[in-house]
Amino acid sequence: MKEITVTGTNGTCRIELNRPDCGNLVSTGMVQGLTLALQSIADDVKLVVISGKGADFCKGRDYETAPESAAGGRAPSALSIRAQMTGPMMTLYTALRELPVATLSVVRGSAYGFGCALAGACDMTLASETARFRLPEMGRGLPPTLAMSALWDRIAPRTIGYLVYSTAELSARDALATGLAHSVVPDGELEARAATLVETICKEPLDAIKAVKEYLKEAPSMPPAARGGFGASLFAGVLSSR
Amino acid sequence: MKEITVTGTNGTCRIELNRPDCGNLVSTGMVQGLTLALQSIADDVKLVVISGKGADFCKGRDYETAPESAAGGRAPSALSIRAQMTGPMMTLYTALRELPVATLSVVRGSAYGFGCALAGACDMTLASETARFRLPEMGRGLPPTLAMSALWDRIAPRTIGYLVYSTAELSARDALATGLAHSVVPDGELEARAATLVETICKEPLDAIKAVKEYLKEAPSMPPAARGGFGASLFAGVLSSR
Amino acid sequence: MKEITVTGTNGTCRIELNRPDCGNLVSTGMVQGLTLALQSIADDVKLVVISGKGADFCKGRDYETAPESAAGGRAPSALSIRAQMTGPMMTLYTALRELPVATLSVVRGSAYGFGCALAGACDMTLASETARFRLPEMGRGLPPTLAMSALWDRIAPRTIGYLVYSTAELSARDALATGLAHSVVPDGELEARAATLVETICKEPLDAIKAVKEYLKEAPSMPPAARGGFGASLFAGVLSSR
Repeated sequence: MKEITVTGTNGTCRIELNRPDCGNLVSTGMVQGLTLALQSIADDVKLVVISGKGADFCKGRDYETAPESAAGGRAPSALSIRAQMTGPMMTLYTALRELPVATLSVVRGSAYGFGCALAGACDMTLASETARFRLPEMGRGLPPTLAMSALWDRIAPRTIGYLVYSTAELSARDALATGLAHSVVPDGELEARAATLVETICKEPLDAIKAVKEYLKEAPSMPPAARGGFGASLFAGVLSSR
Repeated sequence: MKEITVTGTNGTCRIELNRPDCGNLVSTGMVQGLTLALQSIADDVKLVVISGKGADFCKGRDYETAPESAAGGRAPSALSIRAQMTGPMMTLYTALRELPVATLSVVRGSAYGFGCALAGACDMTLASETARFRLPEMGRGLPPTLAMSALWDRIAPRTIGYLVYSTAELSARDALATGLAHSVVPDGELEARAATLVETICKEPLDAIKAVKEYLKEAPSMPPAARGGFGASLFAGVLSSR
Repeated sequence: MKEITVTGTNGTCRIELNRPDCGNLVSTGMVQGLTLALQSIADDVKLVVISGKGADFCKGRDYETAPESAAGGRAPSALSIRAQMTGPMMTLYTALRELPVATLSVVRGSAYGFGCALAGACDMTLASETARFRLPEMGRGLPPTLAMSALWDRIAPRTIGYLVYSTAELSARDALATGLAHSVVPDGELEARAATLVETICKEPLDAIKAVKEYLKEAPSMPPAARGGFGASLFAGVLSSR
């Protein structure tokens, strides 16, 4: 059984983590599979939806197969960490951020560690009432600075600091208050509400979806005074091309 | 009857959209009228208050008179869009942002599209309990990237992305949680609470109001390390000049 | 009795404002004492905890001893304001921001003016249910632009503007919604909950705590594209050095 399943219909590409027995813990291979799925979306896709099969979105990295566990008691070198772990993850986060279309995470159960960063790295997050978000890495003595980079610009930096140092769990309601989730729905309605949101977005024209995404991607690195003109140009570009 | 009414008393300039029959939909002429009102405030004004007459703050642009509707089936050129629509809007947003004194939006009913951007572009927003905020443009196939620029730095970028793609409506309480509204009051108390806030601000000295506004305007484009010295200089400038 | 008490145990440095009779109003001398305490922490400290003795965290600056009150009716010069007030405060805020380890404010009662800025300048804030936050300076005609600089990047700029102009008081719950507080607990449980959080953090390794803090300090001034690589490097640096 494949650990990442990808299906496409009507302008939507659905990517599902598929290791439900262990809460969708991800190996480096799965991180690479996610990247490949993102890099392979069809030209007519408007929206990528990421979810996890079963009770949890993603409980984090699979430490049993993690490169730092395989060094036989010796610390791995910085370069081997990059080659085997942080490199593939950075490539994934970059692919997700650079995707020219909209991205949505649909979260049920635990979104921990890498799972929390993956959910937050999407443009939008829909969560079920019992979803929970957490960055537990410091409890294992690991600084989750790469996950922090994925969440940066997504939720307030000071909130990221608190989540990391305290290792506290955020309920779905707390996640809503911090902006990590955008909508919280009853557990039994998660799929139906996700379908409605997907349908809404897939009725929007592809050129407008791409213009909005380009704005979201580029505005953060622009001087404030340039943001108005950029927004006006994107709008005029779409409208004048129809 | 004028579509924009401007009244000034005791250090306050009140600008009211005055097309209550259609929820204060704005034409390009009204956008220019708003800009002119902002550019014409008296030297002793401390606070500009923007509101809408009747049940709604502003339901958005008036598409019947919009330039893109007037091209007889042909797409308007990028330059004509700029001349007739995005140009005047950018000028308004810039005038609002550059105003040397405080700005307050008082929102009742719908703040949709341009209305949502206008409310959020003010320094402060007071909303009644049944106010609602929405960016519905993508439902018409238009990317509201110019409205996004007005809201940038005001609410979290990721929240802007969600509002745009989902076209979801925010209740006043939701708007409070995202920072789009700062205070939510019962419908019947909106005017009284606005009057109290206006009175508080108009007791503050003009030099201090301007120093605070200068900080709000300039700090976003400063390197983090320079923000402390800038804040200290503004404070000392005011205090040593009395 | 000393106005600042400093105690250290098990990787924690506790700094307590100790003027409970006046709600821990701070003089310039106390600001300098806080700075000295921060600059003198032991090499093995992982966490600095700042609190106020008695019913309040800190009600603000002590205006009776403030330099601007001592000029005998004449406005003080900008340079004397810098020497006697803004200079020492900037040094404190910089020391707090530059500290290589985690910082936590534990807030009971009033955190007003300087007290509000001090609480927010820490990486994390734990508040009791009846804590209240306020920037009342404009009610005295003073622009709190230096306090604004301490809160910048900590809470949303637009929220800072509202707090300053309106001089409104935030309840602990409101502070939670704006990100000024991270956790709100019943009054009777504040010490116990603070102790649990301190214990959690002090079990984390010092190298990981420092790596996370370095990320929090440096990421804001980095171009967005560089933040991933920086996070990956910090992680690899820690892991490969064990």
